[in-house]
Amino acid sequence: MSEHYQALLEKLKAITDVEKAVAVLDWDRETYMPEHGIAGRTRQISTLSEIAHRMFTSNELGDLLAAAENEQREAAYDSDEASMLRSVRREYDEQGLFTPEFVRRRSEVTGAAGAAWAACRKKNDFAGFRPHLEASVAIAQEAADIYGYDDEKYDALLDKYERGMKTAAVRRIFDEVKAQTVPLIQAINERKGAIDDRMLAQDFPVEAQRTMCRYAAESVGYDFSRGNLAEVHHPFSTSFGRNDVRITTRFAPEYAVSSLFATLHESGHAMYEQGIAEALDGTPIGKGTSSGIHESQSRLFENQVGRSLGYWQAHFEVLQRHFPEQLKGVSVEQFYRAINKVQPSLIRVEADELTYNMHIILRFELEQALINGDLKVADLPGAWREKMQTLLGVVPETDSKGVLQDIHWSMAAFGYFPTYTLGNLYSAQFMAAARQQDPRIDTELAQGKTTQLLAWLRENVHRHGSKYDAPELCRRATGQTLSAEPFVHYVREKFGALYAL
Amino acid sequence: MSEHYQALLEKLKAITDVEKAVAVLDWDRETYMPEHGIAGRTRQISTLSEIAHRMFTSNELGDLLAAAENEQREAAYDSDEASMLRSVRREYDEQGLFTPEFVRRRSEVTGAAGAAWAACRKKNDFAGFRPHLEASVAIAQEAADIYGYDDEKYDALLDKYERGMKTAAVRRIFDEVKAQTVPLIQAINERKGAIDDRMLAQDFPVEAQRTMCRYAAESVGYDFSRGNLAEVHHPFSTSFGRNDVRITTRFAPEYAVSSLFATLHESGHAMYEQGIAEALDGTPIGKGTSSGIHESQSRLFENQVGRSLGYWQAHFEVLQRHFPEQLKGVSVEQFYRAINKVQPSLIRVEADELTYNMHIILRFELEQALINGDLKVADLPGAWREKMQTLLGVVPETDSKGVLQDIHWSMAAFGYFPTYTLGNLYSAQFMAAARQQDPRIDTELAQGKTTQLLAWLRENVHRHGSKYDAPELCRRATGQTLSAEPFVHYVREKFGALYAL
Repeated sequence: MSEHYQALLEKLKAITDVEKAVAVLDWDRETYMPEHGIAGRTRQISTLSEIAHRMFTSNELGDLLAAAENEQREAAYDSDEASMLRSVRREYDEQGLFTPEFVRRRSEVTGAAGAAWAACRKKNDFAGFRPHLEASVAIAQEAADIYGYDDEKYDALLDKYERGMKTAAVRRIFDEVKAQTVPLIQAINERKGAIDDRMLAQDFPVEAQRTMCRYAAESVGYDFSRGNLAEVHHPFSTSFGRNDVRITTRFAPEYAVSSLFATLHESGHAMYEQGIAEALDGTPIGKGTSSGIHESQSRLFENQVGRSLGYWQAHFEVLQRHFPEQLKGVSVEQFYRAINKVQPSLIRVEADELTYNMHIILRFELEQALINGDLKVADLPGAWREKMQTLLGVVPETDSKGVLQDIHWSMAAFGYFPTYTLGNLYSAQFMAAARQQDPRIDTELAQGKTTQLLAWLRENVHRHGSKYDAPELCRRATGQTLSAEPFVHYVREKFGALYAL
Repeated sequence: MSEHYQALLEKLKAITDVEKAVAVLDWDRETYMPEHGIAGRTRQISTLSEIAHRMFTSNELGDLLAAAENEQREAAYDSDEASMLRSVRREYDEQGLFTPEFVRRRSEVTGAAGAAWAACRKKNDFAGFRPHLEASVAIAQEAADIYGYDDEKYDALLDKYERGMKTAAVRRIFDEVKAQTVPLIQAINERKGAIDDRMLAQDFPVEAQRTMCRYAAESVGYDFSRGNLAEVHHPFSTSFGRNDVRITTRFAPEYAVSSLFATLHESGHAMYEQGIAEALDGTPIGKGTSSGIHESQSRLFENQVGRSLGYWQAHFEVLQRHFPEQLKGVSVEQFYRAINKVQPSLIRVEADELTYNMHIILRFELEQALINGDLKVADLPGAWREKMQTLLGVVPETDSKGVLQDIHWSMAAFGYFPTYTLGNLYSAQFMAAARQQDPRIDTELAQGKTTQLLAWLRENVHRHGSKYDAPELCRRATGQTLSAEPFVHYVREKFGALYAL
């Protein structure tokens, strides 16, 4: 008997159809929409979002959910049915917590803060942004109180992006990363001239970049018959279902490597969505389970694979063929060293694999203090500079290059930043487990191939979609809870060798 | 007092938002969607179409419509309000006829048939397409029976694309076109060598075609800040609102003129939608009033403008600059003669201005027979060949070049084909009226400009959207009901001169 469950599933799939249509409208807005299309598009997206919301929060769906739960109460914990119902119940109850009045007010606050942020960043005007950021912090605190929490207010915000993860656990792990990374960065700083990456700062023809990005995405296993690559200002990936998952990139003539690694990054995200079990496709759990796990897949292909020597030993020849003048006389080892140069810098999105986490830890610590009320928004720029000095040894001269650089806080997306570093840690832990469980993976990686690695990820991560929360998925796939150890081990080995430490 | 009317309008605009989202999903399917995206996309479109249908056919909307009609009963016949209510009432009463189950089933049939058609055309596999076409005919017959008709079943289908037009009337006008055209074609056939168009059958670099198509679209007034040009297999245009109206084209290296005229054709369609009054945007009457009137706008810019000597006297130099080798030593008169060569051929979309209508009349007659049940799908390829022989004196060797060449029947779009020739007839009638009413139009056309012509069309055709049915719009704009005369006059003058008849 699964009559109620099937009826519920049909309703949920229809809601997913509407949400995927919104995703297509979003993708088109970023890729091909003409400039004057924006007003109509905003209306269309808003109408569809409202329809999806109304469908999901209807009493009819609530009744069907209760009936399906009753019908499926014997279903095994890890069955699709039980997993689906757990997830839908959680989301249904949660959506009920936030009144339309609150949702509207939050959207007003973040709408105004977003516009103010863009303007103030340009003008280096933190004072102008301050009242908006205060409102943004306040609305996030209010959301946390409505959502509820046991230990710390920040838990409620983190749970939105990394369900089941506690602030205290993240703090413990991040402290370990910090303790191990800061001395490593300092040691590297004493060997500043050890890596020469000037060959990356040339003009790389955009047409060849385009071909090379396609090649790179294909080389790691992104399936172009179930997706495509488009050009945008800010790269992203988006799924309209497991058989249509698109990636985007941005081409800057002066820095080919940026489009290449952005493509590998988005390919990682996209392969996660392409690998979700067919049975889950179009259902509420037919998508990546958390921001951190999603980021682990992008980082794995961008860094663990894409910045490895093995990958480039196999593929550098192709790159050289596409940029014969720019890479003339460059050896694969020189190239490998260049793309792994460590250099403390001010801007998060341009940071290397090692210093990147320091940017995240800084934001994680600051936003906890903001949410707990230990730090006033007025004192934020000073706190930012202080932490930059401690963690990276560099200090921004302007707020535009400091506290105003990211959009996230204007969107009240507190709790999102830590998932970037969680992604790095998960990626190392998955990679270590995969290599240990299947020795063919190492052999292949040394030849620039990822077939077995992708098979392992499909089996242990991708296919489950959102059946399990991130902590449970991590335990199931690696046999361990998340720890800093695999990542610390990885960077010590890699950068120890690169910098002869 | 317009409280009920405004409330109705808000609901209708939300429905339009959903319909426009479907249009975006459709456009994306034809342009950028990867091959395996089709199943998910078919589902999404089907779900959204059902939602729009349900919103439109709800009792709530019916009550609001009745209240708004009562409130606006004094509104002038040609006011936006009265026109909107007339149109919505008609559609509301009609849509009530089609159940959500039928709408979903039809969309599934045509989704599958569309995919099958594309595959079978490639493989010249009519047998593979046959069951899909049978399903498509059956669903169209079912729709006609639901819709109802007085005289012939085909009336019900024609009315969908050309409201207010009767099959018998079309037959009369088409018979007149046939009577006048067939002898003209025969006379031209006796002067086969009179026009040399070999210069068109060279390799034209696709990149230059791309630039030239943009140039051509802009030259006739298509607004790129409210649209774009994408590449597809089967060119079309689509509107997501008057500020986002897209055109598409197809590039074949061996026949540059084909992409150029396809672009002018779609630009004509798109300018109609771009020219609709702002007050009607996003409402049910904010779109072209019929397929025939739509086609009149595309044919006007493709043929009456784009195949005129005046247009090329102004623009041939630019074309020559884009294809210097291919058009070396070719005079504008030679080029003008070449693009107007009359040559009975197999493929409708490649047919010249004169024989084109014979392709349409063939389809018009065959699809009437399919719908009436006088012709079986299995016998269609034979009937096709027979009629080709009678009307054009040429017979396709493969079904790919015969009955499989058009997508329309896979979409169950029976009743659509005649609107192509109706469009040719309307375009000649509009053109004659415009030139008579504003003498500046002729002066401009002789210089390859269309500013005043476009202004006349905006004022007399475009801005009205669907306020008036095609027959009424034609009377208002030209003072006459549709007749074959202006078109017959036009082709006799033009081809009489070209072939010295």
